Order: sequence, then structure tokens, then C-alpha cells
Amino acid sequence: MSKPSIPKGTRDFTPAEMAKRNYIFDTIRSVYALYGFKQIETPAMETLQTLLGKYGEEGDKLLFRVLNSGDYLTKVSDEQLAERNSLALSSKICEKGLRYDLTVPFARFVVMHRDEIQLPFKRYQIQTVWRADRPQKGRYREFYQCDADIVGSDSLLNEVELVQIMDTVFQRLGIRVQIKINNRKLLSGIAEIVGEAEKIVDITVAIDKLDKIGLDKVNEELRTDGISEEAIAKLQPVITLSGSNEEKLKVMEDFLASSEVGMKGIEELRFILNAASQVDLKNELQLDLTLARGLNYYTGAIFEVKALDTPMGSITGGGRYDNLTGIFGMPGISGVGISFGADRIYDVLNTLDLYPKEITTDTQLLFINFGEKETCYCLPVVAKARQNGIRTEMFPDAAKMKKQMAYANANAIPYVALAGDDEIQKGVVTLKNMETGEQEQVTPEQLIEIVKG
Amino acid sequence: MSKPSIPKGTRDFTPAEMAKRNYIFDTIRSVYALYGFKQIETPAMETLQTLLGKYGEEGDKLLFRVLNSGDYLTKVSDEQLAERNSLALSSKICEKGLRYDLTVPFARFVVMHRDEIQLPFKRYQIQTVWRADRPQKGRYREFYQCDADIVGSDSLLNEVELVQIMDTVFQRLGIRVQIKINNRKLLSGIAEIVGEAEKIVDITVAIDKLDKIGLDKVNEELRTDGISEEAIAKLQPVITLSGSNEEKLKVMEDFLASSEVGMKGIEELRFILNAASQVDLKNELQLDLTLARGLNYYTGAIFEVKALDTPMGSITGGGRYDNLTGIFGMPGISGVGISFGADRIYDVLNTLDLYPKEITTDTQLLFINFGEKETCYCLPVVAKARQNGIRTEMFPDAAKMKKQMAYANANAIPYVALAGDDEIQKGVVTLKNMETGEQEQVTPEQLIEIVKG
Repeated sequence: MSKPSIPKGTRDFTPAEMAKRNYIFDTIRSVYALYGFKQIETPAMETLQTLLGKYGEEGDKLLFRVLNSGDYLTKVSDEQLAERNSLALSSKICEKGLRYDLTVPFARFVVMHRDEIQLPFKRYQIQTVWRADRPQKGRYREFYQCDADIVGSDSLLNEVELVQIMDTVFQRLGIRVQIKINNRKLLSGIAEIVGEAEKIVDITVAIDKLDKIGLDKVNEELRTDGISEEAIAKLQPVITLSGSNEEKLKVMEDFLASSEVGMKGIEELRFILNAASQVDLKNELQLDLTLARGLNYYTGAIFEVKALDTPMGSITGGGRYDNLTGIFGMPGISGVGISFGADRIYDVLNTLDLYPKEITTDTQLLFINFGEKETCYCLPVVAKARQNGIRTEMFPDAAKMKKQMAYANANAIPYVALAGDDEIQKGVVTLKNMETGEQEQVTPEQLIEIVKG
Repeated sequence: MSKPSIPKGTRDFTPAEMAKRNYIFDTIRSVYALYGFKQIETPAMETLQTLLGKYGEEGDKLLFRVLNSGDYLTKVSDEQLAERNSLALSSKICEKGLRYDLTVPFARFVVMHRDEIQLPFKRYQIQTVWRADRPQKGRYREFYQCDADIVGSDSLLNEVELVQIMDTVFQRLGIRVQIKINNRKLLSGIAEIVGEAEKIVDITVAIDKLDKIGLDKVNEELRTDGISEEAIAKLQPVITLSGSNEEKLKVMEDFLASSEVGMKGIEELRFILNAASQVDLKNELQLDLTLARGLNYYTGAIFEVKALDTPMGSITGGGRYDNLTGIFGMPGISGVGISFGADRIYDVLNTLDLYPKEITTDTQLLFINFGEKETCYCLPVVAKARQNGIRTEMFPDAAKMKKQMAYANANAIPYVALAGDDEIQKGVVTLKNMETGEQEQVTPEQLIEIVKG
């Protein structure tokens, strides 16, 4: 018999880890609900027809495919088998795959339930996704996503709400963050102005390095990327852009004056920043021109959140996209959404030691088991403690005292109760505070009062 | 573009369904915690080595297998391909499968984490499982299981706790139930006494029909099943067994007097029933000799729960098993567990209309959007309502009043707030109670007070 193992890139979660993860999920969930988002769940498996072609060629390769049940080879000819083409064969023997993200299943959901839902539709979804990525530190093949999207509304108030949600969640979690915002239309405008539409990603990557390598080296890198001298000259005010959001917007307004799409981006950003300034954000919302995430996907505002007190990649992101449901035959629906990165938030909270003590749902009170007579005496007291909401255990076996106390210690149970002949006669139990070591005889009512604290 | 669909036997859950399902899961979760059980989660995918051979030949066929990533055919020879043996090939091209239940992953967890956990280990787990069953009404290919198990303790107090948990969960859900209990050792004893060890399932099935078909027909069925006349004669007191649990135990004690295993079963049942009588159960705990679930699996007490007020199969079940972790090389660990059938409980609550009204996390207050100026005025009031815990939405678009009110109605939002020139001037909003139709001008503070109720 070989040692059991789990598939690489997957994880078991112990009770201690679960308590911390539930704290994160519950916080996000309650904030989503506070903003009127409604929860849905979709199946772990989707048809490959739904999944394929939605995540690029690389994404298709990273899908986990589920083998058809029964005699899955009946539909495959001898010739097809002999070809030994893994990719071609997989589309014959697999019709289903595991969810790769929550966005495509959501688009599919909206189209399939179009007659039941009311637009604008605000949904949130907290479920696992699976990707056959090469596992590495902090990257898993199974992980949770925590998404919220609004579809069916072009209003920029939705963007404002999502900023408020990010602000509120991290405020509640006690993580100081910077919320970065940009707009895809601004980037399109820049590309238009400098005449380098194809190079917009290279440009933003180079600009992003200004603080680290200085202006000369940024320009050098732009040259290496094949950007023309004329374009680089034009780009100087964008590269050295600094100051407050309003100062940045002013510079960009001049820069983009002749670009219609660019000016639309300015207008959108100004609306969002202005509205956000009226709702008392606790974290900084900063316009960051180098933010460029998922260029092919997003069409308007884009967001990213960075933790301030520990180095870590983006812990939340999102943006505005057009025509999400078009791929499933329901065109003209715009949407905007965000996704919290639960695994990275988990690491940040661990690193900064920010988990509140009271998130545990661990046992509060353990009754020692001395044998059948004592147990019989304790059972109604145990039941009463539970009726009063105290998470209570009775040690199931009449094991040695040392073993039972070791169990209490290992599970960090703060109170231990016991009853022998003396206690039974008096109708009390002895209650021991495991932290202070103090113990006293108390009535069942007193016990409940003390443990509830 | 074809219409999108989801794999057969799987489901989307809408917000209304999610609220009900979360109510069930939260109820079960909180009772498990109250009894000191700790939550774990395991990966959706397990290695096929972990899964295969654990659920019988039929179970192996019902496993969903996940195709290996990359060029999965490299390990397959031309000869193996040419054989066209689906089952044999699948073990070459798939190393992983989807979780089929929560018990085997739990056993694997205990063995892999043996150095981290303290025995007895009380764990609960609420996760989806997947089975390639033929989909039919009420049977799905993806469904939740809600399991609690204690491993590493032979004490019958564990059985008593599980009975209390079942009792408490259904009491909290408002479902009147009968908790049935039997003991595998009793059934072994009966088989031993009547000399028909192989026929114990047929015997219990026939006995179970007494109420419906009468004694003569039960005996006839036993004859058809090939039970000897001598055995049938011996079985008469068992078939006509009735009365209180104690009366049944007395009859069975006489019947099983010469069977060591049978008498052990009586002793175990008596302990559990006696202890249970001291903890004030709200539902009836009934000894039912015809209860025989999963004979090969269980070794001691077995449980099943039936709803009293609506016809429905077993909605919860469980029992004592030995040597759960033996299959993974860690012998000698006994366990006992139960599993709540969330899908059936969902149906029972629907049929009996037992969902409390307050389980919704729907929006409580909608602000009407009249345009930018009015929105600007409302935004801080919206923020304030949310700070006070009111689930609040601002309609994102300045759409026609009719459309916005339709949104409020479709989402059953109880309060709608609006502000025009008059309200802005006075520093108030107009609050409309959607149920009564009444509306009045109120200050932001009054609004919060009224909506919070």
C-alpha cells in the first residue's frame, strides 16, 4: 500500500486554516450583500463548448477536461486513435471541463436565465476554479475566486460602487491598501496620439519602471522596444506624469486633446474620481497610468489593489468589459466587475498577523470523562451548556486524565469541567480556567455564565 | 452559435435558491460547531489511487475521471490504443478523479495529517461530490454532502452526540422527524440465530413490509427468497416485533440470547437509548430492526432520519464503521459519522413551506436615480445607510421611473428612497414603503431608523 497523496497544486485545509479562510469569505460576502449583490453558484463542470476559446490558446491548454462516462471510445475511429493527436482526441472523448474562472460561467448563466433575472443584475459568486498551471509557490491548480459583477448597466456609478466595496472590504480586514485605477480608453488614446497602437503594453511596462531606473533608461527601453524617436518625444509628459489625480488628469487632458477615445477616458475617470471623493474612502484611490491589466478584455475602467504594508502582487482587480454575453448569443450587455484574490489576502493577513482572535469556532468547554456514572451526571449539564450556545465537548472515552488534558491543550480549549463523587453529591462541577490554572466548584448556571464571559 | 447549456445532472443556483441553501448549510454548520466538530476542506480532485476500489465495482464506474494535462498519450503504446478498451485506457490517460463522497477523502486526510491532528478527531465537511449516475428527479451528478465524523474513539457517547446533533438540526429547521436506530451487530446476531447469514438483507426487506402486506405475505416473501421453513418459524417474534424501544429490546434479548455478537448489539443499543433519554430529545428516537443501510460498510450503530410530515426517503443517515483509515495504511482507527442530505432537506422545507422569512440577504433599500445632481446628493446618504448595516442600492442609470420601480418590485425591495429639488433643498429624502404604498419625507437619520425597523 503506497502512501496516500493529493494531486499536485491542490491543498487540504485544516480547521485552523478554514477558520481564517471563512473569515475572509464572510467579510467579502457581507460587503457584497451590503451593496445589493446577490449570490449565485454554477456547476464545477461546464461543457467544453462553453469553456473553449474563451481564455485564449494558452487557456484552452490549461483546462482540466473530464473524461466522458461509459465507453467513451465508441465515437472514436481507429484512424483517429492511430493519429495519436492528444488535443484532437480529447475533444472526442471529453465533453466537459472544470470551471476555469467565474466570469464565463456567469455570462452563460445570464444568457440561460435571461427571463428570470432583472437587469441590471448584480451578482456575486465565491467558488473554486481549476487551472492546469505549473504549480509554484503561491500558485495553485485549485483556488477560490470571489467575484462581483454588474451587468446590464453602462452607468459609471457601478465603478464607484466597486471602488467603495474594495475600500470597505480591506478596511474591515484591517489591511491598508492603495486602490489603483486607470481606463482602457486612456491607453487607447495614448496609443493613438503617439501612433504606436500595437506597442501600448510595451509602453506601459516601460513607463512603470520610471521610479526604479530613471527617465533615460525608460526612454532607452522604449527605443529597444522599437518605439519611434518621434513617439518617445511625444510620450515625455506621460512618462514623467506625477502629482495628484487632478494634476495628472489635467496633463493627460492636454496630451489627449485630439483623441476622441482618450478624452472619453478622461471624462469617465473624472466622474469616478469625483463621485468617489464624496463617499469618504478610507484608502487612497490613485490614478495609475501604468496599470494595463487584461488589455484585450477590458474596455473602460480598470482596477487593481496593492497592500501597502507587505510586498505582494495585486490582491484584487477588475474592470469594465463590453459584450460579455455576446459569445453566447446575447449581444449588447455591458458589465463591470472585481475579483478578490482570497489566497493572496490570506497570505497578507498571515504576514501582518491581522486575524482577529474571535474568528475561531473552536470548542469553548471540555467535560472530562471519568466513567459511566460521572458521564451520566454530566450529560444534562453538557446539553444545557450547548442550549446556551457554548461550543461544548464531552471527552468520549474514560481515558487517563493526562490524555484528556492533552486533548484540551492541543485544541486550545479555554475551560475544562469535571465532576467526581464530591461534585455529584453537591450538584456542582469543578471548572478549570486553562489559561490561569484557577479552578472552582460552580453550579451549572454559574458555569454557563463564566464560560459565556 | 448554439444555445449555451450545462452538463446534465448539474444545476445553477439562483439567488433565491442560494439564500435557502445557505440557511440549511449555516444551520448544520453551527450545530456541528456547537458539538465541537471542526471544519476541513479537501480538494475536488483526488488521485485515482485514492478513489478506486473504495466504492465497489459500480462506484468505480461512476467516478468522473480527469484527463491528464499535456500530451497524455505519450505513456500509451500503439497496442494499448488499438485494443479500444475504454476502462483499461482510462487508467493510462487519467490519474485524477472527482471526489465521490467525503468519507474516503476524510480517511486520506486523517492518514496524511496524522501528526497534526489530535485523536479523537471530530471533523465536519460541507462540500460537493460528483457521481456519474443516470440523472433523474431528485438525483444529481453534482451535489453537496454535509458530513460529521469522529475518528479514534470507540465510545458510544459519540453515537449519542450524533443523535443529539440530528435532533437539534431538525428542531432548528422546524422539520418534525423520526430518528431510526439499529445496530449491525443485531442483524448479524439474527442471521446467526436463524442460520441464514447470506440472506439478512432479504430478511430485513421482507420484515419492513409487515405494515403494508401483513404477516402471511411477509412469510410468503421470505419463502420466495429461499429462507428455510425452520428459519421463518424462528423469525416470527422478530417479524412481529412492536412496542416501545425497551419492549423491543427485551424480545430481542431473548431471541439473541445465544448469539455473542447479537447480545453485544443489544448492550450497545441499550446504552445509546438510555443516554439519549437523559438529554431531552425533541424528536422520537426509534429502534427499527428493518433499518439495514450499507451493510458491508457499517459495523455497529446505524442511523436514518425520516421526515414525518411529507413522504420523502431518508434525509440523513450514518453509522459506526471500523478501520476507515486501514485502506491507507493506518489500521485500528474506528469511527462513527452522519451525513445530512441537503438536497432532500431543501425539498422538504419547500414542500412544507418552512423557510423563515428573515433568511434573505436581499436589498432593503433602493435609491431612485433621477440624474447626476440628485445622485450626488444621495451618494452620502447611501453610504451612511450602508455604514448602518442596511443593504442598500442606488439604481445605476437615470432610467424611467417605471423601470426603476419595476426593478424594486422584481427584487422585492421593501423601501424606495428618492430625492428631487424639493428634498435636496430641505435636506431630506422621500421614503416609500413598498408594501403599504405610504410615503413621507424623512431626514437621513430617520430613514435609517425606519428601514432598520
